[in-house]
Amino acid sequence: MLSTDECVRLLGTTEIGRVVVSMDALPAAFPVNYRVVGDEIVFQTAPGTKLAAAVSRTVLGFQVDDIDARERHGWSVLVVGLSRVVEDPAEAQDLERAGVQTWWSTAPGMRFVAIAMDRVSGRRLGEPATSES
Amino acid sequence: MLSTDECVRLLGTTEIGRVVVSMDALPAAFPVNYRVVGDEIVFQTAPGTKLAAAVSRTVLGFQVDDIDARERHGWSVLVVGLSRVVEDPAEAQDLERAGVQTWWSTAPGMRFVAIAMDRVSGRRLGEPATSES
Repeated sequence: MLSTDECVRLLGTTEIGRVVVSMDALPAAFPVNYRVVGDEIVFQTAPGTKLAAAVSRTVLGFQVDDIDARERHGWSVLVVGLSRVVEDPAEAQDLERAGVQTWWSTAPGMRFVAIAMDRVSGRRLGEPATSES
Repeated sequence: MLSTDECVRLLGTTEIGRVVVSMDALPAAFPVNYRVVGDEIVFQTAPGTKLAAAVSRTVLGFQVDDIDARERHGWSVLVVGLSRVVEDPAEAQDLERAGVQTWWSTAPGMRFVAIAMDRVSGRRLGEPATSES
Protein backbone atom coordinates (compact mmCIF):
# COMPACT_ATOMS: atom_id res chain seq x y z
CA MET A 1 0.00 0.00 0.00
CA LEU A 2 1.17 3.51 -0.78
CA SER A 3 0.88 6.38 1.68
CA THR A 4 -1.69 9.09 1.03
CA ASP A 5 1.10 11.60 0.38
CA GLU A 6 2.69 9.31 -2.17
CA CYS A 7 -0.68 8.72 -3.85
CA VAL A 8 -1.31 12.46 -4.12
CA ARG A 9 2.19 12.98 -5.52
CA LEU A 10 1.61 10.26 -8.13
CA LEU A 11 -1.74 11.83 -9.10
CA GLY A 12 0.24 14.92 -10.06
CA THR A 13 2.52 12.99 -12.41
CA THR A 14 -0.03 11.95 -15.04
CA GLU A 15 -2.85 13.55 -16.98
CA ILE A 16 -5.31 10.76 -17.75
CA GLY A 17 -7.64 9.15 -15.22
CA ARG A 18 -10.94 7.32 -15.24
CA VAL A 19 -14.15 8.49 -13.67
CA VAL A 20 -15.73 5.46 -11.98
CA VAL A 21 -19.46 5.71 -11.54
CA SER A 22 -22.68 3.73 -11.43
CA MET A 23 -24.71 4.42 -14.52
CA ASP A 24 -28.21 2.94 -14.80
CA ALA A 25 -27.16 0.87 -11.77
CA LEU A 26 -24.25 -0.67 -13.69
CA PRO A 27 -20.54 -0.10 -13.12
CA ALA A 28 -18.89 2.20 -15.64
CA ALA A 29 -15.59 4.01 -16.14
CA PHE A 30 -14.68 6.77 -18.60
CA PRO A 31 -11.25 8.26 -19.23
CA VAL A 32 -10.77 12.01 -18.88
CA ASN A 33 -7.78 14.28 -18.73
CA TYR A 34 -7.56 15.96 -15.34
CA ARG A 35 -5.56 18.16 -13.01
CA VAL A 36 -5.13 18.12 -9.26
CA VAL A 37 -6.25 21.56 -8.00
CA GLY A 38 -5.96 22.01 -4.26
CA ASP A 39 -7.61 19.00 -2.65
CA GLU A 40 -9.67 18.09 -5.66
CA ILE A 41 -9.46 16.24 -8.95
CA VAL A 42 -10.81 18.55 -11.67
CA PHE A 43 -11.87 17.70 -15.22
CA GLN A 44 -14.35 18.86 -17.83
CA THR A 45 -17.47 17.20 -19.18
CA ALA A 46 -19.33 18.00 -22.35
CA PRO A 47 -22.95 19.09 -21.91
CA GLY A 48 -25.62 16.53 -22.66
CA THR A 49 -23.42 13.48 -22.24
CA LYS A 50 -24.25 10.55 -20.00
CA LEU A 51 -21.11 11.32 -18.05
CA ALA A 52 -22.18 14.91 -17.42
CA ALA A 53 -25.52 13.67 -16.08
CA ALA A 54 -23.88 11.10 -13.82
CA VAL A 55 -21.23 13.17 -12.08
CA SER A 56 -23.18 15.90 -10.36
CA ARG A 57 -23.24 15.77 -6.58
CA THR A 58 -22.59 12.09 -6.13
CA VAL A 59 -19.83 9.89 -4.80
CA LEU A 60 -17.43 9.16 -7.62
CA GLY A 61 -14.40 7.01 -7.95
CA PHE A 62 -11.40 8.27 -9.87
CA GLN A 63 -8.71 5.83 -10.88
CA VAL A 64 -5.27 6.56 -12.24
CA ASP A 65 -2.49 4.17 -13.07
CA ASP A 66 0.84 4.10 -14.82
CA ILE A 67 1.84 0.60 -15.86
CA ASP A 68 4.77 -0.53 -17.95
CA ALA A 69 3.36 -3.55 -19.79
CA ARG A 70 6.79 -4.64 -20.95
CA GLU A 71 8.40 -4.53 -17.51
CA ARG A 72 5.13 -5.54 -15.86
CA HIS A 73 5.23 -3.07 -13.04
CA GLY A 74 3.68 0.23 -12.15
CA TRP A 75 1.21 1.75 -9.74
CA SER A 76 -2.47 2.44 -9.33
CA VAL A 77 -4.26 5.06 -7.23
CA LEU A 78 -7.97 5.23 -6.42
CA VAL A 79 -9.71 8.37 -5.19
CA VAL A 80 -13.25 8.26 -3.83
CA GLY A 81 -15.12 11.42 -2.99
CA LEU A 82 -18.12 13.64 -3.42
CA SER A 83 -18.31 15.43 -6.74
CA ARG A 84 -19.56 18.89 -7.51
CA VAL A 85 -20.11 20.86 -10.67
CA VAL A 86 -18.29 24.20 -10.59
CA GLU A 87 -21.08 26.79 -10.80
CA ASP A 88 -19.15 29.91 -9.76
CA PRO A 89 -18.05 31.75 -12.94
CA ALA A 90 -14.97 33.17 -11.19
CA GLU A 91 -13.84 29.71 -10.13
CA ALA A 92 -14.51 28.36 -13.61
CA GLN A 93 -12.43 31.18 -15.07
CA ASP A 94 -9.57 30.35 -12.69
CA LEU A 95 -9.69 26.72 -13.77
CA GLU A 96 -9.70 27.74 -17.40
CA ARG A 97 -6.64 29.91 -16.81
CA ALA A 98 -4.98 27.03 -14.96
CA GLY A 99 -5.36 24.97 -18.11
CA VAL A 100 -8.00 22.49 -16.96
CA GLN A 101 -9.53 21.76 -20.33
CA THR A 102 -10.77 18.59 -21.93
CA TRP A 103 -8.69 17.30 -24.79
CA TRP A 104 -11.62 15.68 -26.53
CA SER A 105 -14.36 18.18 -27.08
CA THR A 106 -14.69 21.69 -28.31
CA ALA A 107 -18.41 21.78 -27.58
CA PRO A 108 -19.65 25.04 -26.05
CA GLY A 109 -20.92 24.88 -22.47
CA MET A 110 -18.26 22.55 -21.10
CA ARG A 111 -18.56 22.22 -17.35
CA PHE A 112 -15.90 21.71 -14.73
CA VAL A 113 -16.40 18.84 -12.30
CA ALA A 114 -14.40 18.56 -9.07
CA ILE A 115 -14.02 15.40 -7.00
CA ALA A 116 -12.98 15.83 -3.37
CA MET A 117 -10.08 13.55 -2.45
CA ASP A 118 -11.96 12.16 0.56
CA ARG A 119 -10.36 8.72 0.34
CA VAL A 120 -7.10 8.07 -1.43
CA SER A 121 -5.51 4.66 -1.69
CA GLY A 122 -2.95 3.10 -3.95
CA ARG A 123 -0.42 0.38 -4.43
CA ARG A 124 2.55 -0.61 -6.47
CA LEU A 125 2.05 -3.40 -8.98
CA GLY A 126 4.89 -5.82 -9.52
CA GLU A 127 8.52 -5.13 -8.83
CA PRO A 128 10.63 -2.67 -10.76
CA ALA A 129 13.81 -4.09 -12.21
CA THR A 130 15.89 -1.73 -10.08
CA SER A 131 15.04 -1.39 -6.41
CA GLU A 132 13.38 1.82 -5.27
CA SER A 133 13.67 3.46 -1.92
CA MET B 1 -19.27 5.24 -30.85
CA LEU B 2 -17.39 2.15 -31.93
CA SER B 3 -19.11 -0.98 -33.20
CA THR B 4 -19.17 -4.05 -30.96
CA ASP B 5 -16.87 -5.87 -33.38
CA GLU B 6 -14.37 -3.02 -33.28
CA CYS B 7 -14.53 -2.92 -29.47
CA VAL B 8 -13.85 -6.65 -29.23
CA ARG B 9 -10.98 -6.30 -31.70
CA LEU B 10 -9.48 -3.47 -29.61
CA LEU B 11 -9.83 -5.53 -26.42
CA GLY B 12 -7.50 -8.04 -28.05
CA THR B 13 -4.80 -5.45 -28.70
CA THR B 14 -3.84 -4.62 -25.10
CA GLU B 15 -3.12 -6.51 -21.91
CA ILE B 16 -4.11 -4.17 -19.08
CA GLY B 17 -7.66 -3.35 -18.07
CA ARG B 18 -9.49 -2.22 -14.99
CA VAL B 19 -12.07 -4.16 -13.04
CA VAL B 20 -14.84 -1.71 -12.11
CA VAL B 21 -16.85 -2.74 -9.10
CA SER B 22 -18.76 -1.46 -6.10
CA MET B 23 -16.85 -2.17 -2.94
CA ASP B 24 -18.45 -1.36 0.40
CA ALA B 25 -21.05 0.50 -1.68
CA LEU B 26 -18.37 2.78 -3.15
CA PRO B 27 -17.09 2.88 -6.70
CA ALA B 28 -13.69 1.26 -7.22
CA ALA B 29 -11.43 0.20 -10.07
CA PHE B 30 -8.34 -2.01 -10.05
CA PRO B 31 -5.96 -2.72 -12.90
CA VAL B 32 -5.32 -6.31 -13.93
CA ASN B 33 -3.66 -7.97 -16.88
CA TYR B 34 -6.19 -9.97 -18.88
CA ARG B 35 -6.91 -11.99 -21.99
CA VAL B 36 -10.00 -12.32 -24.14
CA VAL B 37 -10.92 -16.02 -24.16
CA GLY B 38 -13.98 -16.85 -26.24
CA ASP B 39 -16.71 -14.42 -25.23
CA GLU B 40 -15.18 -13.59 -21.88
CA ILE B 41 -12.58 -11.36 -20.29
CA VAL B 42 -10.35 -13.54 -18.09
CA PHE B 43 -7.90 -12.52 -15.38
CA GLN B 44 -6.51 -13.81 -12.11
CA THR B 45 -7.05 -12.65 -8.55
CA ALA B 46 -4.97 -13.42 -5.52
CA PRO B 47 -6.75 -15.24 -2.70
CA GLY B 48 -7.80 -13.20 0.29
CA THR B 49 -7.78 -9.85 -1.48
CA LYS B 50 -10.68 -7.43 -1.47
CA LEU B 51 -10.82 -7.77 -5.23
CA ALA B 52 -11.14 -11.55 -5.02
CA ALA B 53 -14.05 -11.17 -2.60
CA ALA B 54 -15.78 -8.59 -4.79
CA VAL B 55 -15.70 -10.28 -8.17
CA SER B 56 -17.54 -13.53 -7.61
CA ARG B 57 -20.91 -13.88 -9.35
CA THR B 58 -21.72 -10.23 -9.70
CA VAL B 59 -22.08 -7.69 -12.47
CA LEU B 60 -18.68 -6.18 -13.14
CA GLY B 61 -17.45 -3.45 -15.37
CA PHE B 62 -14.19 -3.87 -17.22
CA GLN B 63 -12.58 -0.83 -18.81
CA VAL B 64 -9.70 -0.72 -21.25
CA ASP B 65 -8.19 2.25 -23.00
CA ASP B 66 -5.19 3.16 -25.06
CA ILE B 67 -4.50 6.89 -25.03
CA ASP B 68 -1.58 8.81 -26.46
CA ALA B 69 -1.21 11.69 -23.99
CA ARG B 70 1.13 13.59 -26.32
CA GLU B 71 -1.12 13.37 -29.35
CA ARG B 72 -4.22 13.51 -27.17
CA HIS B 73 -6.16 10.80 -28.88
CA GLY B 74 -6.99 7.17 -28.35
CA TRP B 75 -9.92 4.93 -27.52
CA SER B 76 -11.79 3.51 -24.57
CA VAL B 77 -13.90 0.35 -24.32
CA LEU B 78 -16.24 -0.64 -21.50
CA VAL B 79 -17.49 -4.18 -20.93
CA VAL B 80 -20.29 -4.92 -18.48
CA GLY B 81 -21.23 -8.47 -17.63
CA LEU B 82 -21.76 -11.17 -15.06
CA SER B 83 -18.61 -12.56 -13.51
CA ARG B 84 -17.84 -16.09 -12.47
CA VAL B 85 -14.94 -17.75 -10.73
CA VAL B 86 -13.55 -20.64 -12.75
CA GLU B 87 -14.11 -23.69 -10.52
CA ASP B 88 -13.55 -26.47 -13.04
CA PRO B 89 -9.93 -27.67 -12.72
CA ALA B 90 -9.79 -28.68 -16.40
CA GLU B 91 -10.89 -25.20 -17.48
CA ALA B 92 -8.41 -23.61 -15.08
CA GLN B 93 -5.66 -25.77 -16.55
CA ASP B 94 -6.62 -24.71 -20.07
CA LEU B 95 -6.43 -21.04 -19.04
CA GLU B 96 -3.07 -21.64 -17.43
CA ARG B 97 -1.80 -23.20 -20.63
CA ALA B 98 -3.22 -20.29 -22.60
CA GLY B 99 -1.04 -18.00 -20.52
CA VAL B 100 -3.69 -16.22 -18.48
CA GLN B 101 -1.61 -15.41 -15.45
CA THR B 102 -1.39 -12.38 -13.24
CA TRP B 103 1.79 -10.37 -13.56
CA TRP B 104 1.67 -9.19 -9.98
CA SER B 105 1.40 -12.07 -7.62
CA THR B 106 3.02 -15.44 -7.18
CA ALA B 107 0.75 -16.33 -4.28
CA PRO B 108 -0.53 -19.91 -4.31
CA GLY B 109 -4.23 -20.42 -4.87
CA MET B 110 -4.71 -17.79 -7.56
CA ARG B 111 -8.17 -17.97 -9.06
CA PHE B 112 -9.36 -17.25 -12.57
CA VAL B 113 -12.26 -14.85 -12.94
CA ALA B 114 -14.22 -14.56 -16.19
CA ILE B 115 -16.48 -11.66 -17.14
CA ALA B 116 -19.09 -12.29 -19.82
CA MET B 117 -19.03 -9.62 -22.51
CA ASP B 118 -22.77 -8.99 -22.14
CA ARG B 119 -22.53 -5.31 -23.04
CA VAL B 120 -19.65 -3.83 -24.94
CA SER B 121 -19.38 -0.15 -25.82
CA GLY B 122 -16.56 2.12 -26.79
CA ARG B 123 -15.53 5.31 -28.45
CA ARG B 124 -12.62 7.11 -29.97
CA LEU B 125 -11.18 10.02 -27.99
CA GLY B 126 -9.90 13.00 -29.92
CA GLU B 127 -8.78 12.97 -33.51
CA PRO B 128 -5.65 11.26 -34.71
CA ALA B 129 -3.26 13.48 -36.65
CA THR B 130 -3.75 11.35 -39.76
CA SER B 131 -7.26 10.44 -40.78
CA GLU B 132 -8.36 6.88 -40.25
CA SER B 133 -10.82 4.93 -42.32
